Amino acid sequence: MSEKLRLGILGGGGDSLIGVLHRVAANMFDQYKIIGGCFNPDPQENKKFAEKLGLNPNRVYDSFEILIDSEMKLPLEERMQVVSVLTPNFLHYPMAKKLLENGFNVICEKPLTTSYSEAIELEELQKKNNTAFAVTYTYTGYPIVRQMKDMIKNGVIGKIQKVDMQYYQGWINPIIHDKSQRNSVWRLDPKKAGISSCIGDIGTHAYHMLEYLTDMKVKEVLADLNHLYDDNELDIDGTVLIRFSNHSKGVIRASQIATGEENNLTVAIYGDKGGFRWEQENPNYLYYLTNDKPLQVLKPGNPYLSEFSLQDTKLPAGHPEGIFDSMGNIYNGVARKIKGIKNFDGGFPTLEEGVRGMKFIEKVVESNAKGNIWLNL
Amino acid sequence: MSEKLRLGILGGGGDSLIGVLHRVAANMFDQYKIIGGCFNPDPQENKKFAEKLGLNPNRVYDSFEILIDSEMKLPLEERMQVVSVLTPNFLHYPMAKKLLENGFNVICEKPLTTSYSEAIELEELQKKNNTAFAVTYTYTGYPIVRQMKDMIKNGVIGKIQKVDMQYYQGWINPIIHDKSQRNSVWRLDPKKAGISSCIGDIGTHAYHMLEYLTDMKVKEVLADLNHLYDDNELDIDGTVLIRFSNHSKGVIRASQIATGEENNLTVAIYGDKGGFRWEQENPNYLYYLTNDKPLQVLKPGNPYLSEFSLQDTKLPAGHPEGIFDSMGNIYNGVARKIKGIKNFDGGFPTLEEGVRGMKFIEKVVESNAKGNIWLNL
Amino acid sequence: MSEKLRLGILGGGGDSLIGVLHRVAANMFDQYKIIGGCFNPDPQENKKFAEKLGLNPNRVYDSFEILIDSEMKLPLEERMQVVSVLTPNFLHYPMAKKLLENGFNVICEKPLTTSYSEAIELEELQKKNNTAFAVTYTYTGYPIVRQMKDMIKNGVIGKIQKVDMQYYQGWINPIIHDKSQRNSVWRLDPKKAGISSCIGDIGTHAYHMLEYLTDMKVKEVLADLNHLYDDNELDIDGTVLIRFSNHSKGVIRASQIATGEENNLTVAIYGDKGGFRWEQENPNYLYYLTNDKPLQVLKPGNPYLSEFSLQDTKLPAGHPEGIFDSMGNIYNGVARKIKGIKNFDGGFPTLEEGVRGMKFIEKVVESNAKGNIWLNL
Amino acid sequence: MSEKLRLGILGGGGDSLIGVLHRVAANMFDQYKIIGGCFNPDPQENKKFAEKLGLNPNRVYDSFEILIDSEMKLPLEERMQVVSVLTPNFLHYPMAKKLLENGFNVICEKPLTTSYSEAIELEELQKKNNTAFAVTYTYTGYPIVRQMKDMIKNGVIGKIQKVDMQYYQGWINPIIHDKSQRNSVWRLDPKKAGISSCIGDIGTHAYHMLEYLTDMKVKEVLADLNHLYDDNELDIDGTVLIRFSNHSKGVIRASQIATGEENNLTVAIYGDKGGFRWEQENPNYLYYLTNDKPLQVLKPGNPYLSEFSLQDTKLPAGHPEGIFDSMGNIYNGVARKIKGIKNFDGGFPTLEEGVRGMKFIEKVVESNAKGNIWLNL
Repeated sequence: MSEKLRLGILGGGGDSLIGVLHRVAANMFDQYKIIGGCFNPDPQENKKFAEKLGLNPNRVYDSFEILIDSEMKLPLEERMQVVSVLTPNFLHYPMAKKLLENGFNVICEKPLTTSYSEAIELEELQKKNNTAFAVTYTYTGYPIVRQMKDMIKNGVIGKIQKVDMQYYQGWINPIIHDKSQRNSVWRLDPKKAGISSCIGDIGTHAYHMLEYLTDMKVKEVLADLNHLYDDNELDIDGTVLIRFSNHSKGVIRASQIATGEENNLTVAIYGDKGGFRWEQENPNYLYYLTNDKPLQVLKPGNPYLSEFSLQDTKLPAGHPEGIFDSMGNIYNGVARKIKGIKNFDGGFPTLEEGVRGMKFIEKVVESNAKGNIWLNL
Repeated sequence: MSEKLRLGILGGGGDSLIGVLHRVAANMFDQYKIIGGCFNPDPQENKKFAEKLGLNPNRVYDSFEILIDSEMKLPLEERMQVVSVLTPNFLHYPMAKKLLENGFNVICEKPLTTSYSEAIELEELQKKNNTAFAVTYTYTGYPIVRQMKDMIKNGVIGKIQKVDMQYYQGWINPIIHDKSQRNSVWRLDPKKAGISSCIGDIGTHAYHMLEYLTDMKVKEVLADLNHLYDDNELDIDGTVLIRFSNHSKGVIRASQIATGEENNLTVAIYGDKGGFRWEQENPNYLYYLTNDKPLQVLKPGNPYLSEFSLQDTKLPAGHPEGIFDSMGNIYNGVARKIKGIKNFDGGFPTLEEGVRGMKFIEKVVESNAKGNIWLNL
Repeated sequence: MSEKLRLGILGGGGDSLIGVLHRVAANMFDQYKIIGGCFNPDPQENKKFAEKLGLNPNRVYDSFEILIDSEMKLPLEERMQVVSVLTPNFLHYPMAKKLLENGFNVICEKPLTTSYSEAIELEELQKKNNTAFAVTYTYTGYPIVRQMKDMIKNGVIGKIQKVDMQYYQGWINPIIHDKSQRNSVWRLDPKKAGISSCIGDIGTHAYHMLEYLTDMKVKEVLADLNHLYDDNELDIDGTVLIRFSNHSKGVIRASQIATGEENNLTVAIYGDKGGFRWEQENPNYLYYLTNDKPLQVLKPGNPYLSEFSLQDTKLPAGHPEGIFDSMGNIYNGVARKIKGIKNFDGGFPTLEEGVRGMKFIEKVVESNAKGNIWLNL
Repeated sequence: MSEKLRLGILGGGGDSLIGVLHRVAANMFDQYKIIGGCFNPDPQENKKFAEKLGLNPNRVYDSFEILIDSEMKLPLEERMQVVSVLTPNFLHYPMAKKLLENGFNVICEKPLTTSYSEAIELEELQKKNNTAFAVTYTYTGYPIVRQMKDMIKNGVIGKIQKVDMQYYQGWINPIIHDKSQRNSVWRLDPKKAGISSCIGDIGTHAYHMLEYLTDMKVKEVLADLNHLYDDNELDIDGTVLIRFSNHSKGVIRASQIATGEENNLTVAIYGDKGGFRWEQENPNYLYYLTNDKPLQVLKPGNPYLSEFSLQDTKLPAGHPEGIFDSMGNIYNGVARKIKGIKNFDGGFPTLEEGVRGMKFIEKVVESNAKGNIWLNL
């Protein structure tokens, strides 16, 4: 009998990039076997895609409802153990809900839901059973990010006094300046994209990374968002002042109109004993600063790193980790949790973390709408 | 007869680093000859220091008042043409005032004064005569910064929609966490340092750089400052939301508790056609971003640069420009203005720019004090 | 029926890192299904490992001879189509030989064999049938490396006049200075490791990359190798002067005693119209230099890249490619070749390229042994 | 009486960049006062230039012979103490010779002479008196280069086992491919430029830096030079294998046809305990590598540096040092020597170092001419 976990997938068919990313990640540590799913709302397309993946047609379903119902009829030792949810955002909630109600472990793309209230509901559901539930904030999977988390936890940089997160992209720039495009693209349509574009899509990543790394909760936000045109309803840029307390403050900066930027997520966290800097586009370098010693550059796979970081490096030092590896590490974390192998706190982003993300988006939009006032988080 | 300008210096004696910087800068383009000054309030020290510089004792004065009075008695063709003011901040105002009243060209260290009202007074004085008055925001002197200014002016990145300035240092970190130190150091004493530490000292640099590069005026600020300890009166960290307009926004971030940071001033400016990034600690690289072409890296001294940039490079491409060169370029700009040689707008930071800096500091502190509200600038 | 290629694997069991790398790569583009193999010489370990992978026990074999014999008895539509050879170096030759004789497509780890004469034999065997045969010089799989190859081919940097390849590691440093270690480690034992350590293991990578990128053949080599201790037989450092012609020259530098270096493979290639620089540890940046324009930095996934480069990028620009992606791209190239999908020259390193590598090693060692003389290649 | 040294200058008039560099450097630490010289062979131009510098016409001379004769008639306390030689290469020898014969301290541009035999002659002359004689290998003046020298001296990286120096430029590329230009430019005319272009101009810099940093002497060289065209007599590219001993080897690589490179001098030195990397175009970062600890990045002006490094930093950490500062540090070193202030070995490049440079050029050209054989150095 294989020790691999039986994985089902919802969404991610056709040319979906996120589908490729999750499938590769699932295979990365020999922990999962993809056995079925529902990849496409169109039954024909769905079957064709499943065939391409070489799946048993009996485990390919026309809808997520049928998938869950059919799988529940299978004996426990055959049933899918984990289901990945890669569908458009508004489907995350109904799918995750039904999966939770039936006891499946879930790996769900971010944002968790389209509203904070839905997110809370899922959280409460999960508390009742003991399933693993990961929200794929992918960037937390980098080995050197985990090293940073570990060192902060161990007090290496002391008490945190200043944080600065950036997530700059420029991709919406050609769209936003074209009236017909900005009025038609689904990303800027509140009915399809929710209450926020920039903060909802990427600001929330930066926010999650901050709480993930520091193990601290942001207490208050004050936001100023930019819509650039009066006929555009959703923010495409914004700066959010944050406070952990009156003496520990910082900022989250996000933009989709930082022209020419690709995926520029950066971290800067300063404590009373030291600081860290990290850049997602160069994810294998962790910069560690102190008052009185030379800057140190930590790189993945080296013996001087923590066990939490090293368990996620597959090759010797000097072999760069890319985004596929990062997602693979998250899948690995979920598998360790399910299998009961030694599990590290922070091995994958939890449902609670997904819920915080939804709250963040809503409070940021509210702060901006109310004239840039402080709101509790 | 030498074509060099006759330069006097106030302050900068003893071990003063700023004194070294100005003297080297003055010599960099063979445009100035230092002929005298008052370098030290102690007459003995003053004389001794002047002797070290090889100056004629007749032009070394016991006070700035005596300097001005004595020089005014000399014939115009012998009199100092320019006086540099390198004294502690509170002396800038009285010295600059008397120099302006007597028609001297002035090169003054920043911040211009200790209050906005003093600054305005100097501005009005200068308008009455036609002297050159530079405020040494040194970082504007880098050739590649001037290239950036020039390209923005020529519309290369289009209409500006997003700006992000950072000035992070960590030097106050060991001081601020030591109660006796933080209660005694002059930098944190409002009587000596004015109403602000972090914003006054470095935030103002970032603010000036922003307006220098964009040729735009910030209209509103909203600030959140950090004092870290309740018994510390002055800000040592802060984030300032800024608005040029409702559709062109950004942020200025400054800190003296970014532990381990040395002098990390960075610029990010994005327009609808492109963007720029620049870092002071690596001042010879200008990153130019666009929607659809590879990132370009511009370096000083290359033929593809503008005349404004090239006039300030002394050696061929590949020979790094340092901070001494930057100050030298500012001195050169002042000399060109005085001598009536082809002068570039932006060749040195003007008195008006110094005045703006004072206003910025006062409004930022006020926004923070009033509970993080927007104030006009 | 699945469109996936049926893949068998020789070696790579247990904790083998190379095994992980090949399995992930095989799964990266949904082009392969691992259906069996022989992972371990120990039958028990072999079965156990296959079970962990969830494989059908019928396709798990006790030796490579049994594997080939058994698979040959299966109908063509069930038989393995590709076999990966990940065993210790001395087994590459017998395995690849038998696989070629029986018409299998082969993906073989480098170095191809332990001697040039064995390598030639394989090359001749392959010429008789039409199978795909890849030698996994992994670093050629990076999308931006492929972009470089494409631009050189299209004459972007003109006629090549100067090349400089570096491959520096430091891992052998702690071993080489310990007499008992250097006399016992298999890597420095000529009976196990062949005639060369440094040139054989990494110099050959740099050499292959050079010919891969330029589509030119090195004509002559002159080598100076370093053994560091008289009781050490194999080179652990060396510099190889190379000539394409009398007017197009360069150098390959390799070291295992560059203390502190991890896996520092770099490329610098200069033509009469431009030049390229690339670093493996930062594999997502291609630096393009010209006489008279700013340095350009090309990054994967951008529309300005060639089709050859873009087909190997799985995610949007700004998502870093790591080493797993690089190997995945090579597997993808082999699959395209086998399936007859549009195939790019250079999509995977061929058998001929593996043969060249063996010749290079032998000639370099010979040049050094004969007193640093030029030898034809 | 001023404590400044009385400095005379030969050459460097008109638009000479090297003239600017030396004058700024001389002024950088308030150690020199330029009192006269002969800046231009044309008496009119000479006078005009001196006037621009504001010099006393009595100390401006029509030729270097007149300068020396006239200065020798002045009392010792008025006479020039140091003379800088910035004239074309072929004039270095006669000028330096006469200056030495008359007891002047000398600061001479590199290369020291046009032949090794002339260089030796100067060395013998200097041994007879006790003057300071600096050859301005400018790049040795960077504070962080001095830190590297100091750490190597103190055994931080242990016994040196591998060195790799690079000096790549691309400026001759547009010239060399144009037949009329390459046959007419003085740089490629052996009568004017001596026996070598690339090695003589920049290879020698890399060579000097290597011996400067390691305090070791290269014993043997084997060179392969590239002339690119048969009608071009001088090398414009070359690789030089070097040996300190049979167990400590390396390479010096130099090029003027590395298209697009500006002034890319790099250092890589590895010992049995650690290694260093440094790049001239980014001169404020020293990379320190070890077997088992994170990479460290040392930056100028920090308290963790040595006294030898810190004495040459004028401003706090984070303020970049440029090439002007580097030359200034060399002038300062000479002044400390002359004045008998605490002097550091390595504070300026000595005459002996200049002589080694001439020998290096001659032996490299000879090795190449004789068919790439090893020659003693």
